[in-house]
Amino acid sequence: MCTVMKFNQFQSQDDNKVWKWHFQDPASQRLTWNKPPKSVLVIKKIRDASLFQPFKELCIFLSEVKNMIVYVEKKILEDPAISADENFGAITKKFCTFREDLDDISNRVDFIICLGGDGTLLYASSLFQESVPPVMAFHLGSLGFLTPFKFDTYQSQVTQIIEGNAAIVLRSRLKVRVLKENQEKKDRLVDKEGIILTNGDNESNQKAMQYQVLNEVVVDRGPSSYLSNVDLFLDGHLITTVQGDGVIVSTPTGSTAYAVAAGASMIHPNVPAIMITPICPHSLSFRPIVVPAGVELKITLSCDARNTAWVSFDGRKRQEICHGDSITITTSCFPVPSICFRDPVNDWFESLAQCLHWNVRKKQNYLSSEDEEY
Amino acid sequence: MCTVMKFNQFQSQDDNKVWKWHFQDPASQRLTWNKPPKSVLVIKKIRDASLFQPFKELCIFLSEVKNMIVYVEKKILEDPAISADENFGAITKKFCTFREDLDDISNRVDFIICLGGDGTLLYASSLFQESVPPVMAFHLGSLGFLTPFKFDTYQSQVTQIIEGNAAIVLRSRLKVRVLKENQEKKDRLVDKEGIILTNGDNESNQKAMQYQVLNEVVVDRGPSSYLSNVDLFLDGHLITTVQGDGVIVSTPTGSTAYAVAAGASMIHPNVPAIMITPICPHSLSFRPIVVPAGVELKITLSCDARNTAWVSFDGRKRQEICHGDSITITTSCFPVPSICFRDPVNDWFESLAQCLHWNVRKKQNYLSSEDEEY
Amino acid sequence: MCTVMKFNQFQSQDDNKVWKWHFQDPASQRLTWNKPPKSVLVIKKIRDASLFQPFKELCIFLSEVKNMIVYVEKKILEDPAISADENFGAITKKFCTFREDLDDISNRVDFIICLGGDGTLLYASSLFQESVPPVMAFHLGSLGFLTPFKFDTYQSQVTQIIEGNAAIVLRSRLKVRVLKENQEKKDRLVDKEGIILTNGDNESNQKAMQYQVLNEVVVDRGPSSYLSNVDLFLDGHLITTVQGDGVIVSTPTGSTAYAVAAGASMIHPNVPAIMITPICPHSLSFRPIVVPAGVELKITLSCDARNTAWVSFDGRKRQEICHGDSITITTSCFPVPSICFRDPVNDWFESLAQCLHWNVRKKQNYLSSEDEEY
Amino acid sequence: MCTVMKFNQFQSQDDNKVWKWHFQDPASQRLTWNKPPKSVLVIKKIRDASLFQPFKELCIFLSEVKNMIVYVEKKILEDPAISADENFGAITKKFCTFREDLDDISNRVDFIICLGGDGTLLYASSLFQESVPPVMAFHLGSLGFLTPFKFDTYQSQVTQIIEGNAAIVLRSRLKVRVLKENQEKKDRLVDKEGIILTNGDNESNQKAMQYQVLNEVVVDRGPSSYLSNVDLFLDGHLITTVQGDGVIVSTPTGSTAYAVAAGASMIHPNVPAIMITPICPHSLSFRPIVVPAGVELKITLSCDARNTAWVSFDGRKRQEICHGDSITITTSCFPVPSICFRDPVNDWFESLAQCLHWNVRKKQNYLSSEDEEY
Repeated sequence: MCTVMKFNQFQSQDDNKVWKWHFQDPASQRLTWNKPPKSVLVIKKIRDASLFQPFKELCIFLSEVKNMIVYVEKKILEDPAISADENFGAITKKFCTFREDLDDISNRVDFIICLGGDGTLLYASSLFQESVPPVMAFHLGSLGFLTPFKFDTYQSQVTQIIEGNAAIVLRSRLKVRVLKENQEKKDRLVDKEGIILTNGDNESNQKAMQYQVLNEVVVDRGPSSYLSNVDLFLDGHLITTVQGDGVIVSTPTGSTAYAVAAGASMIHPNVPAIMITPICPHSLSFRPIVVPAGVELKITLSCDARNTAWVSFDGRKRQEICHGDSITITTSCFPVPSICFRDPVNDWFESLAQCLHWNVRKKQNYLSSEDEEY
Repeated sequence: MCTVMKFNQFQSQDDNKVWKWHFQDPASQRLTWNKPPKSVLVIKKIRDASLFQPFKELCIFLSEVKNMIVYVEKKILEDPAISADENFGAITKKFCTFREDLDDISNRVDFIICLGGDGTLLYASSLFQESVPPVMAFHLGSLGFLTPFKFDTYQSQVTQIIEGNAAIVLRSRLKVRVLKENQEKKDRLVDKEGIILTNGDNESNQKAMQYQVLNEVVVDRGPSSYLSNVDLFLDGHLITTVQGDGVIVSTPTGSTAYAVAAGASMIHPNVPAIMITPICPHSLSFRPIVVPAGVELKITLSCDARNTAWVSFDGRKRQEICHGDSITITTSCFPVPSICFRDPVNDWFESLAQCLHWNVRKKQNYLSSEDEEY
Repeated sequence: MCTVMKFNQFQSQDDNKVWKWHFQDPASQRLTWNKPPKSVLVIKKIRDASLFQPFKELCIFLSEVKNMIVYVEKKILEDPAISADENFGAITKKFCTFREDLDDISNRVDFIICLGGDGTLLYASSLFQESVPPVMAFHLGSLGFLTPFKFDTYQSQVTQIIEGNAAIVLRSRLKVRVLKENQEKKDRLVDKEGIILTNGDNESNQKAMQYQVLNEVVVDRGPSSYLSNVDLFLDGHLITTVQGDGVIVSTPTGSTAYAVAAGASMIHPNVPAIMITPICPHSLSFRPIVVPAGVELKITLSCDARNTAWVSFDGRKRQEICHGDSITITTSCFPVPSICFRDPVNDWFESLAQCLHWNVRKKQNYLSSEDEEY
Repeated sequence: MCTVMKFNQFQSQDDNKVWKWHFQDPASQRLTWNKPPKSVLVIKKIRDASLFQPFKELCIFLSEVKNMIVYVEKKILEDPAISADENFGAITKKFCTFREDLDDISNRVDFIICLGGDGTLLYASSLFQESVPPVMAFHLGSLGFLTPFKFDTYQSQVTQIIEGNAAIVLRSRLKVRVLKENQEKKDRLVDKEGIILTNGDNESNQKAMQYQVLNEVVVDRGPSSYLSNVDLFLDGHLITTVQGDGVIVSTPTGSTAYAVAAGASMIHPNVPAIMITPICPHSLSFRPIVVPAGVELKITLSCDARNTAWVSFDGRKRQEICHGDSITITTSCFPVPSICFRDPVNDWFESLAQCLHWNVRKKQNYLSSEDEEY
């Protein structure tokens, strides 16, 4: 159990200074454990040979030295490169295992450690549809936006975190709800032989799925070479129609992922906001926008769209969107508490420089053609 | 006196759902008066002949019909086009007048009405270094981002606001502090005859000025044709050096002003953030960034800058920045409560469409070259 | 037969003024027929009900009034909406028909008329792998970049063109050659049952296809959600690696199509150049570039690309690109002579305004916050 | 005397293949001397202590070893750091000197060598209003777009050039003509005491100045904080009005200087084109455009401009533009023949990488969140 500082922004209300605000510096948020973490989920990028040794070392350290209950995904242990190691195999007997989509571990884990790239954190996020335990993420190769720790001194660093001495950034997520109006009709279409396999009755011809997204929801034209045509609603009002390759709805965390490639400004993860970025829009004036975290967005196919669109969630679970379907997006109540290497501000600027070469430049005097100074 | 809804974002803290967030929809913020407003400040764009008649009508309405105490700037009444009207002159006898920079009216005004362009709201903001009364702003010509009301039906609209029925957006401001390290040295330089007019002693060779800014602080190269070279610090850490025409530090409100021209994404005014946008940066990778409202920024000339820089505040009070000077920027505790025509969301998208033609487009099928569909 | 003005740019070579250039104004290029055109190809956007009547009128006019030999694609006449009209059917008896990819009409047509959208001109271009006859293109709905003529007064306008009174713009095309190194290997992979259907011997395991492209060649990641990774060579030298959604190699004509959506500057069709525009590049500094028409570009998958890429030509003939394949691009010797409504300059700026709303704006004084002018 | 390859692009005109084009590869242009160069102009960045020694060495080599007539600007030799060196002083006796704006050396120089930054080439260009001799430019510090040679092995490199073994790029220049309609009125205004010093009569109240520009013409708002408002004409037609900080009209060479900072695509210097780039335009849709080298541009203040504008030429000769004045821009007949280190293509891409970090990136898999690959 743990707590974090509570408010980003609040207002006093005495009569003489109405609308007086106070803002919290993001660097001041810190992780404190109500009681020490007992169980730890270890996530590893799969099929990356360079990770096997670090993974084994880390698990042994957590289990043997720190006496923690180690959770690992079943398929990780079944990987021949792991299961072939008999010594390690003996130790894994004590581990708890689970299978994605089948076993719910959301209330059994106190702490998460990721090994690999930014994808491991996206995957960890997807396992927790509600409250997420604090996550400590190691990059093995080069620094990522979501993986600030180096593995070299993992023992001292993990110890320090377990003892509660760490800055933390609460990364907002998006709660995305996909409502399929014509589920029954779609199933018919899928049937290649003309036989109706699934014929939904009136009660069941809607189907809703829900996702927690850490980076972004992407709606695009999929394999079609036509422009996608989707309508974007904010709090129930149609605000614009997207004509182009698609649209990205991202968290501030996601602003430095696909959105930045599509031309977005970069937003620090502590800003409570949602970013809307068109992908190759046909309109010259379709600049990205940033709206408050508290709004509700909805995306549907436009009436006159000739083709369907496709949606994906942090790059996963890609699916088709047809006329009548809708995608509803709000900021999730359940952020990902991501442990910082230094603090939310320094970690972010370090990633901007390392991952995106932000404003890396050579000093040059391109206007140095003055009379006296050429 | 009036109050607004308090929190944009808060977190519950029960033990089982740590880090659970709730976000307020910006559209739900509403103005309520603790007691009816008694005094009203009327701001008019000066020297615009088309505004004289509306201004007089409005003042008479507020004073005679609504029995409010009307505050007007002294130079407005001294304008021959106003003072020549004897009938109106008689009525103005009841008005309270003030002079900019000389008379402090900050605690005497309950309500502000602006007539003209976005500049009137920037001016109104500059008159209130601390708490700002609610502002209702009329555009006479075309819609502005800060002036959502049409003047046609001003009587019913003003009545409705006074009665407390209005949505409101709290526009954050920046508190900017300029510290001149070498004030004494600069004064010497100004002296053309070689005589030292102002010779600061050791105690007085620093001078700080403070500004409340609603749109943006701009640091640029001024009349110099050399690139500006300024260092940007965040919470005391050097995060980057700006080499280019300059840099814009703006509020979300200012993101749709000069910043958008320099390439920024547009940020809704309810997002608690600060935007940093380079002006014609020499580096291809210097994308604008958005940081949390709670940070402290500082700007200084770089050590190796060959020229001074210039700073302005909402386009005003332009001044030179020399080696050793610094500009410190934080989000102000005192936002501008700006009354909405409809609500913060609809007003903003209406302005994006009207003022910036955001995503105005003609539907076209530029990829319509498929085999079967050309 | 027809001729156009010859040189865009030339240099004198007398000894005293070496490197003296002369440039031709694009507006001075004009169409002149050596002898009047006898045969005309009419291209119609298919399955667009609004075009049937104009199409029939135009064909009758060309055949009956102008006594021209009318070429029409066979499938157009077979469309029930056309074939059901008995009167028109009688007239079509005199028409020459052809089938795409089967019949070569490239040396039999003197003149082309297009009815529909920009896609009709792209289609017309694809029918002529070498010299292209002059094209007159009508838009029925809204103005397109490639379809400058309104249909209302088609009779007088067609008459005027046939008589030789017209400005013309020579739109450069790209000659694209796709070389499949591993054709044999690919066919094996396609075989689902494990049986080798096509087993290329040493002589035949390369296959080259060639395309003439008017807008652009697009290389993208296709249905894969991984970044594409392609190497770009210029005159044999590796100049950069594209990591992102893909890359667009376009003519100046194509600069206002997909490339502009991906962030390119717009290039007038008279500029002899090739534009290279990344699609959502991962690198902040990957700005589009413009290279001279005379270079040779080559695109291959990068060694470390995890996925294949896909290529398409003016949105058509989409195909997969595997390791070892290459795409070679040069400016074609055979431009499309596109007849202007007014002239190359005015037509282009008219299209920029109508199709892209280029610099459509509302005059506003966003910096109007000076002391004396708020 | 020297010649270069003549044509970038030409068309054959036989009857069967009208509009067949041939394009020259830019890498094939080479410098050949009709007779060996006798005189050389040496340009040095002034007041840069690190250049004194290389400058002296180079001059001695050219004069003593190569027996060339060395031209140097008078003020360079008068610099105390040069004139104090008695040994070198003796050698300079043989040099030819000149003063800027007073002595015309345009027909006396066969060859130019620049030492310093890109500004030295801009300066060299400004000395030659008509034909320009071939220029060899050395960077002493870091590589510049216009200064491809390293100084280390200057002797062998200069020897090689003099012997005629070099690739060359002809950099187009802009011929800019500023016409002051109200010269007489302006002179009156300049007079501070109210006395009319220069009272132009009817014949003389127009004044035209002409400039050869290698990078760009910039029209901006100068010290004013109002937007500039200028009208842009192409071949006599108003094509748009620029509302913003200003507009840059640049050569392809200039596309990588100020224009790139304002958001332009980069254009290879061999493309015969003119680039028009707005500076911080108020309109979201004001994308840069590229027009053919053969057009004539004209810029004037808009009727409703509240303020004057300012124009500069390669960063020099800054002057005010008032109502009635005009700036006319065409591609100059006299390019700058700039000697390549390798060839026009490789030199350019080397500069893009070194000077602008173009597409420098870290390979990263930001979409690596697939089910099987996180």
